[in-house]
Amino acid sequence: MRASQLLDEIAAVGRDRVRGGFSRHAFDPAEGELRTWFVERAQRLGLDVETDRNGNIWAWWGTPGPDAVVTGSHLDSVPGGGAFDGPLGVVSALDAVEALQAKGFVPGKPFAVVVFAEEEGGRFGVPCLGSRLLTGSIDADRARALRDPDGVTLAEAASRAGHDPERFGADPEALSRIGRFIELHVEQGRGLIDLGSPVAVGSTVIAHGRWRFSFSGQGNHAGATLIGDRHDPMIPAAAVVAAARRAALATGDGRATVGRLVPTPGGTNVIASTVDLWLDARVPGDKRTQALVAEITEAAEEAALAEGCLITVSEESYSDTVTFDAGLRDELSKRLGGVPELPTGAGHDAGVLAAHVPSGMLYVRNPTGVSHAPEEFAEVADVDHGARALAAVLEHLST
Amino acid sequence: MRASQLLDEIAAVGRDRVRGGFSRHAFDPAEGELRTWFVERAQRLGLDVETDRNGNIWAWWGTPGPDAVVTGSHLDSVPGGGAFDGPLGVVSALDAVEALQAKGFVPGKPFAVVVFAEEEGGRFGVPCLGSRLLTGSIDADRARALRDPDGVTLAEAASRAGHDPERFGADPEALSRIGRFIELHVEQGRGLIDLGSPVAVGSTVIAHGRWRFSFSGQGNHAGATLIGDRHDPMIPAAAVVAAARRAALATGDGRATVGRLVPTPGGTNVIASTVDLWLDARVPGDKRTQALVAEITEAAEEAALAEGCLITVSEESYSDTVTFDAGLRDELSKRLGGVPELPTGAGHDAGVLAAHVPSGMLYVRNPTGVSHAPEEFAEVADVDHGARALAAVLEHLST
Repeated sequence: MRASQLLDEIAAVGRDRVRGGFSRHAFDPAEGELRTWFVERAQRLGLDVETDRNGNIWAWWGTPGPDAVVTGSHLDSVPGGGAFDGPLGVVSALDAVEALQAKGFVPGKPFAVVVFAEEEGGRFGVPCLGSRLLTGSIDADRARALRDPDGVTLAEAASRAGHDPERFGADPEALSRIGRFIELHVEQGRGLIDLGSPVAVGSTVIAHGRWRFSFSGQGNHAGATLIGDRHDPMIPAAAVVAAARRAALATGDGRATVGRLVPTPGGTNVIASTVDLWLDARVPGDKRTQALVAEITEAAEEAALAEGCLITVSEESYSDTVTFDAGLRDELSKRLGGVPELPTGAGHDAGVLAAHVPSGMLYVRNPTGVSHAPEEFAEVADVDHGARALAAVLEHLST
Repeated sequence: MRASQLLDEIAAVGRDRVRGGFSRHAFDPAEGELRTWFVERAQRLGLDVETDRNGNIWAWWGTPGPDAVVTGSHLDSVPGGGAFDGPLGVVSALDAVEALQAKGFVPGKPFAVVVFAEEEGGRFGVPCLGSRLLTGSIDADRARALRDPDGVTLAEAASRAGHDPERFGADPEALSRIGRFIELHVEQGRGLIDLGSPVAVGSTVIAHGRWRFSFSGQGNHAGATLIGDRHDPMIPAAAVVAAARRAALATGDGRATVGRLVPTPGGTNVIASTVDLWLDARVPGDKRTQALVAEITEAAEEAALAEGCLITVSEESYSDTVTFDAGLRDELSKRLGGVPELPTGAGHDAGVLAAHVPSGMLYVRNPTGVSHAPEEFAEVADVDHGARALAAVLEHLST
């Protein structure tokens, strides 16, 4: 079945009727349905499926072993996300395996399709959680204690979904089997529209991270409390939004975003007692992301002080600049007839794995240039073209 | 049973374990439990209970009729509200009736205790909904279509709670029975602390209203979207928070608050596609609230235009300045030995009724000066003193 047809099969799963698009979050029913679907699809191709200790699913074509060629992506989404971010890499991998089988190819090396858990951090806040746990780049105790917006811990959610959170943690055995990892992904910008190419090879991932700013003041009556008597945490929170924009603009090429902001208690006629907001910051180059966050933090502290509010800032995740393996990039590009290379501002499991094993990425053209939103798109022809490109690359690497 | 003891009886109902304090919203289970509790308490005092067509509960001491002396308040709360705002007026009314009965008093006029529905607008956005419906100051169709944050309409919620929303609307019969209305309420500021008095009589309510600002832009990826390509509705939303503060300060005595702000989809690594925020604005004096909102709206429109976002602003409710009936104020003050008069920035059902029947308010001292928050407080001695003051006033008015 072609990649585009496989996407159609899951088009009804996890639709978000409030936000539009899809909400498929780690260990929720929609993501569980997609896991079951993936296992069934992989088994129909004769692959042997196993779930590792961190909830990542591995579908092996032939015997598992070292120096494996591994491809895949994720099935979870951001809240109200698009249809392609994640699933495109998974369906393209299944399509590629089927195409290679159809032509009688038998891999000369171990070969696996992988589905990583909680890539977006859409539920528990830390992105690439499955690959971070596997590689040991997040502590298992810290991960288990992460909470979703309803206060449910990762350990509780994983447990309810039939996983054993006590087994979470670095998995050197699983990591040591990966020889090279290739992730295909929908492009999350306009690079390929401008270049007029359906596919590109990934070059770098911008350093990026997430910081939580928590302000606390004094909840009170919105009508009876004079402005001069207020300690309203919404004031410094709004100042952070403005400072983030100002500071990001000043970098020239940096990005800073506040997409999640939660006043508590959240009543119209109530001065908030606390406001939590999350800053997503990314600047190309060494240490520039930290410098941007330091500048925004300083503005936040000043604004909090002026309003008589307390502030705490905590880093929820940080990933340094990733440059994908040069040799592998050359191989991919050459095999695909000299397709262009593209940097990205988006994080991926391939970026986490790149610190441990040669990893690479293929991007598929997105005519809207929009991602993490219902407008995210790829033409059927490009989707199927991407899967064929992936098949060619995997054949080459696993021969 | 004393007012303070009655408050203890309901201290476990509707606790908000996330926000602290209480969340008791119109037609939700906690508010339903309080309604049942009130009916039972009123019946034990021999009162005849009926629920009117708008969900307000009336407990009659003796035969219902015209020129009635009516007292009461509400049982719903803001999200994460205090224990006193609303319930204090209801328990003080029950305490007053019991005290008057104990001394053998029989009212010379019809006499009722009333519980108004959805005073805070904590669930459906429009405050004093029960009294607004009763007096016809909100259209029944508009009220039925109001939605809570989960998208449930008032009609649906009322229906599920056993009410008939088709009967909602102006109730001239119920209104015509009210001769005078007295609402006792916890003070929502520091007036009585400064004055050293446990009780005051209400003089005026500042003009106040709620406006919803909705911004829409383009949801997109927080890492892959350059600042220059963004239409991020969080930017003009933050500008409104800052403009509201600036403009309110400039009035000298006005208040403007953004306590509720909802970005959609609300993901950390997602530029929001829409942001809705609610502005609560109140300025003493004629037309000054509208002038404040106009100034904030202008700033919002400029900020939206600069970011390439769309904006809509809609008034959700507005109440003009209320000056409580001068004759009734004098009577209350005299009967209570010359207690002070206090203006308030907080809206009340008594303010809605004041346009139709002579209405008055008693405030009970709040040592924290805080309201709409868990810190809202009244000493037991002051609570019981307030109930005795209310009994004295009701005895006088109904003789």
